[in-house]
Amino acid sequence: MRKFNFCAGPSALPTEVLEELREEILDWKSQGLSVMEMSHRSKEVVEIAETAKQDFIDLMNIGSDYDVLFIQGGASLQFSMVPMNLLTPSNALCNYLNVGQWSKKAIKEAKKYGDVNISASSEEDSFKKYPSPNDWKVDENASYLHLVMNETIDGACIRNHENLPDVDLVADCSSCILSEPLDVSKFALIYAGAQKNIGPAGLAIVIIRRDLLTEKNDIPAMMNYKTYSDSDSMYNTPPTFAWYLSGKVFKWLKNKGGLENQKKENESKANKLYGFIDSSDFYKNDVDIESRSIMNVPFLMNDESLNQKFLAESEQAGLLNLGGHRSVGGMRASIYNAVPPAGIDALVEFMKDFEKENG
Amino acid sequence: MRKFNFCAGPSALPTEVLEELREEILDWKSQGLSVMEMSHRSKEVVEIAETAKQDFIDLMNIGSDYDVLFIQGGASLQFSMVPMNLLTPSNALCNYLNVGQWSKKAIKEAKKYGDVNISASSEEDSFKKYPSPNDWKVDENASYLHLVMNETIDGACIRNHENLPDVDLVADCSSCILSEPLDVSKFALIYAGAQKNIGPAGLAIVIIRRDLLTEKNDIPAMMNYKTYSDSDSMYNTPPTFAWYLSGKVFKWLKNKGGLENQKKENESKANKLYGFIDSSDFYKNDVDIESRSIMNVPFLMNDESLNQKFLAESEQAGLLNLGGHRSVGGMRASIYNAVPPAGIDALVEFMKDFEKENG
Repeated sequence: MRKFNFCAGPSALPTEVLEELREEILDWKSQGLSVMEMSHRSKEVVEIAETAKQDFIDLMNIGSDYDVLFIQGGASLQFSMVPMNLLTPSNALCNYLNVGQWSKKAIKEAKKYGDVNISASSEEDSFKKYPSPNDWKVDENASYLHLVMNETIDGACIRNHENLPDVDLVADCSSCILSEPLDVSKFALIYAGAQKNIGPAGLAIVIIRRDLLTEKNDIPAMMNYKTYSDSDSMYNTPPTFAWYLSGKVFKWLKNKGGLENQKKENESKANKLYGFIDSSDFYKNDVDIESRSIMNVPFLMNDESLNQKFLAESEQAGLLNLGGHRSVGGMRASIYNAVPPAGIDALVEFMKDFEKENG
Repeated sequence: MRKFNFCAGPSALPTEVLEELREEILDWKSQGLSVMEMSHRSKEVVEIAETAKQDFIDLMNIGSDYDVLFIQGGASLQFSMVPMNLLTPSNALCNYLNVGQWSKKAIKEAKKYGDVNISASSEEDSFKKYPSPNDWKVDENASYLHLVMNETIDGACIRNHENLPDVDLVADCSSCILSEPLDVSKFALIYAGAQKNIGPAGLAIVIIRRDLLTEKNDIPAMMNYKTYSDSDSMYNTPPTFAWYLSGKVFKWLKNKGGLENQKKENESKANKLYGFIDSSDFYKNDVDIESRSIMNVPFLMNDESLNQKFLAESEQAGLLNLGGHRSVGGMRASIYNAVPPAGIDALVEFMKDFEKENG
């Protein structure tokens, strides 16, 4: 029996998608083999890949001045690909926001290839309050400004995109992609690891403005965005299974009503959970209200000695993976698209009962 | 109904493995979720990953002076990781064999980071005859010598490993790994893309002698072998599904009797196919007999105008993906571990019938 899975990543996939997969795993459309066993150059896989790409473009409403690339290595490889592709010998300056653990990793890699100006940092606030764009110190001579849109570990994000600076913005959207509509035209480059809202681990999607696709003969072909754009992301064998399954997730999202519908559903899920936490004296979420993520909801109990009991009993109740990140402890509910509203209801009911018994 | 699949990659997976996968895809061991949906830090996934690694070590009989790494990006990323990790400012010289299309790609990437000495080339022989180690011009001051052990496109390989030079050898074994026993101790580093004899695309396995694991602060963390070794290949989210399924393939191989058994089975399969081709005046294989691959068997008909008919009718007969690589044309049967002996029998029967009707 399927349970509710609040894992931060790799995370829940829609049950309907996995059911479809199960039907096809030995024999895709009576072809006598699985998609995993087909050449990436076959017309079948090329069509699966192109359809997935187009569905993603439709969902995100991406203009033709952008290309969409499917790349291995996760967001962590993007931490390097971004500076290796966007910095030049004549301009190796870049702006970074320091808004959490993933920002710090991105900054560390960028420093190997460029000069990093920290435009804003929330480290003094323990990453609990996302700095307002009005307070960013942006060096406008820099090649780009990099920001992690939603920090998965701390559950803080930037949701108001009104006052973003008018520079080339590079956004890590790993844990918020496809959760709500996003105005792609405000960004130069967006990337996201697949294993949260897209599909299985082993894939990252990059949305890149086409003028940034430049041939670089001094970096590996596999690290050059142009290699992927020129080859429809099939310069070498791509992770065909992850791509195929991601395509099924995109169809599922489209059939559900696209990102406007997801926004409503996700806000409703998040509001219910935050609302309950805020109404309780037993639980708390200490992220600045304006910065609260609708995808990752960390919470604490006043009595931390109850943490292990909470995690053991919630697992018994069929609510999986509610532990906080190993670097911060506590609890965290990651409520990505594939976690249904019923999962939130079940979680809140469990939390109420747990409070009653232990409060 | 499952058909016989001769695809060069991504290629056939054992039906038994896919059947096991199908059972687990919605609910792994009654845990209420699939392996794809579990944290890579969970004890379950860590155990799956460690077991897969150990089974691979057992199959290949790898000594403790080597580590085994699970990396994204396929063999094509290794073309860059090898020189980025093994070359140094004080020694940027490396030897490469030019024995096919994949060798050429590896050489192109190495030239971005070092000075490449071509120790031998079979290009004048259209890559149909693997150069004998006795004829290699090895610069012994170089950091390493790189060779592609089995060239998938042309079907030529080096099978006799008696006279390999006593230098650090780096071998791309993508299309021959696990096909027969290999004396790992003769090599400094071995790598292989998964999508032929290991598992689904999106994973490469690297076997590296531990003294070559060095911290490199001037290359991306994701490109440094030491990052993977220090983190049990979990520095970032690894491709957990590909790793899990590869583990099932390793168990399947162990249960079948390991690589000694595979060698017997694969040689028997290859001998049957080459034997039939050689006995026929209608088909031919033009690879030097000593260099013939036991994994990739290209063949031609004297009348090339029959190629399309052959491919269409073989597909009708349930024999899939027999087309040669787009760069060379003709036909090719890739007969990896997951292609059973019965697949060879069916192919030979079909080829006989086709010859009768069209010869």
